[in-house]
Amino acid sequence: MQIIDEHALEDLALGAAVLGTGGGGDPYIGKLMARQAIREYGPVELYTLDEFDDDDLVVPTAMMGAPTVMIEKMPNGDDIVNAFESVGKYIGKPIKATMSIEAGGLNSVVPIYTAARLRMPMLDCDGMGRAFPEIQMVTHTIYGISATPMAMSDERGNTVLMETINNNWTETFARSITVNMGAMAMIALYAATVRQLKEAAIQGTMSRAQEIGKVIRSARVQEEDPVDTVRQAVGGFMVFKGKIGDVQRRTEGGFAKGDAFMDGVDEYAGKKLQLSFQNEHLAARIDGEYIVTVPDLIAVLDIDTGEPITTEGMRYGFRVAVIAFPSADKWRTPKGLELVGPRYFGYDIDYVPVEERLG
Amino acid sequence: MQIIDEHALEDLALGAAVLGTGGGGDPYIGKLMARQAIREYGPVELYTLDEFDDDDLVVPTAMMGAPTVMIEKMPNGDDIVNAFESVGKYIGKPIKATMSIEAGGLNSVVPIYTAARLRMPMLDCDGMGRAFPEIQMVTHTIYGISATPMAMSDERGNTVLMETINNNWTETFARSITVNMGAMAMIALYAATVRQLKEAAIQGTMSRAQEIGKVIRSARVQEEDPVDTVRQAVGGFMVFKGKIGDVQRRTEGGFAKGDAFMDGVDEYAGKKLQLSFQNEHLAARIDGEYIVTVPDLIAVLDIDTGEPITTEGMRYGFRVAVIAFPSADKWRTPKGLELVGPRYFGYDIDYVPVEERLG
Repeated sequence: MQIIDEHALEDLALGAAVLGTGGGGDPYIGKLMARQAIREYGPVELYTLDEFDDDDLVVPTAMMGAPTVMIEKMPNGDDIVNAFESVGKYIGKPIKATMSIEAGGLNSVVPIYTAARLRMPMLDCDGMGRAFPEIQMVTHTIYGISATPMAMSDERGNTVLMETINNNWTETFARSITVNMGAMAMIALYAATVRQLKEAAIQGTMSRAQEIGKVIRSARVQEEDPVDTVRQAVGGFMVFKGKIGDVQRRTEGGFAKGDAFMDGVDEYAGKKLQLSFQNEHLAARIDGEYIVTVPDLIAVLDIDTGEPITTEGMRYGFRVAVIAFPSADKWRTPKGLELVGPRYFGYDIDYVPVEERLG
Repeated sequence: MQIIDEHALEDLALGAAVLGTGGGGDPYIGKLMARQAIREYGPVELYTLDEFDDDDLVVPTAMMGAPTVMIEKMPNGDDIVNAFESVGKYIGKPIKATMSIEAGGLNSVVPIYTAARLRMPMLDCDGMGRAFPEIQMVTHTIYGISATPMAMSDERGNTVLMETINNNWTETFARSITVNMGAMAMIALYAATVRQLKEAAIQGTMSRAQEIGKVIRSARVQEEDPVDTVRQAVGGFMVFKGKIGDVQRRTEGGFAKGDAFMDGVDEYAGKKLQLSFQNEHLAARIDGEYIVTVPDLIAVLDIDTGEPITTEGMRYGFRVAVIAFPSADKWRTPKGLELVGPRYFGYDIDYVPVEERLG
């Protein structure tokens, strides 16, 4: 068991934003909420799956929608508690812990808020090992775990519960309700036993995020090359160094889609990188050639501080480094690639592991 | 207690289509389903509220969406049972009866299907005494009864349950989910005790519909003036006789909106009637002057048979009679008019009871 106090929270949110590959929400508001909850209710206990009974029931909590909305429309905290308790009431059994459904600046800390406020343990695992834009895109789906019963709550006090025949229908209904709720909803879903999670979840994601955050922070203090320090910490590869030029954005079906174009600097001078995203970074092309795609992770880092930049934060003139690192093995199976491979996102290419292209 | 057998079903559906004021769904598919259920499971018992205990819990069942879709996408019956049972399970108390939420060709017979299939009694009341297009437009809302917990089910096996802070939010969420489910969903909502219904419901709607249907049928047999027979049976007024000219239709926010224009015949020769609708008929103007508006009822009848014509069924060249009759008193209160008066539907006029203009 580890303790998530205010200090650990900072590292965890920073590192999770690297794993969030440009998405998973901006950590700012989420971190404020979680910090407040830790101050008020005390630190959160983070457990490995082995420290729990196989029959214990776990319900992840998260935010769904456009994280940019959070600045104007802050969740009040009761909404996430409502969602969590609605699922528990519906199932009619005690829920023993919560967990993160994805790594990302925001959705790694939402369950910390839930855990602090409900004095409940949190598990050191998630359903992606990174962030993805759609509800069915979790390793739970590969192992046949249903997203439903799923609950969605807003800050006004509305709650919607659903039971769907598959996790794609969950995504369809939940996306509409998120729009109705004002582009943001707090959600609880993917109830599973610890036994199921031992098979289906990505383990150690929270402590991995915390470790990455710690590395970034100490690189700053020790004046090391922060980008290379992050690259080493995630076991990744350097893809590009450049200056952001055009960023083309469009909103399609409730998602922030687009492309960022960069001009190379240093050893990449003369080359051009195109980075495509849908909430998260999906694929990078150098001079038209695919160099890395989903499910492998792409992180855009501030070249001077090593801090991750979200897809929404990319702006003309920023000097950035792009690194890539291998996804969890579960995503590299046929079932995994069917859910989150390049073809699902509309790229007519086969997946090639990042280490084969850049290793 | 009365018995709804196949014969009574025919009269009830026909009469309910008159009360449906052009909406509430086409009776064809609903009647087929209910008839099949009566054949398979036996006739349905229809009770007055006084025949039940005050504490008995009642859950209405209905179809939401575009009834035209039903021809291509027939409900399988399990969907309505799923919706009904989801609400019961959520409440955790036995449900003693079902009822109709609105009078209309379809939604007066959907609960007959539910009642036959679940061997459950049905109550002789509804929430409108007519049909209206939106979920919050029931007398239950006037008396503070919540639409939620509401369940929605589709023919695939998906179910969505919601708890909202008011009945307008129910309408918002349910309208989106209906679209996701393919423009049609089976719903269960407005759970209430018999004690609440004695105050809030419109009583006797089902037997009234059956009586109107019987009158239309016997007028045909006895070669009476069928239109005048219907007018007398509903206690109404003749508004217009004419030939349908243009019918302008538009789809807005999931509703079928539009206007039908008619040229007068017989004693109405030389006059023009404009009939505005949103699923149901809302307002009639003769030569530009409002002559009847919501919440009073407007029915368009085939001039030869007295059979009601739905808003969707109106076609160029049809010879029709338009009659109007008083709404239930509950709709004529300030709270009632706020929910369903002409101003709610965007007409900048005060409500004038139909009998004051035409009596």
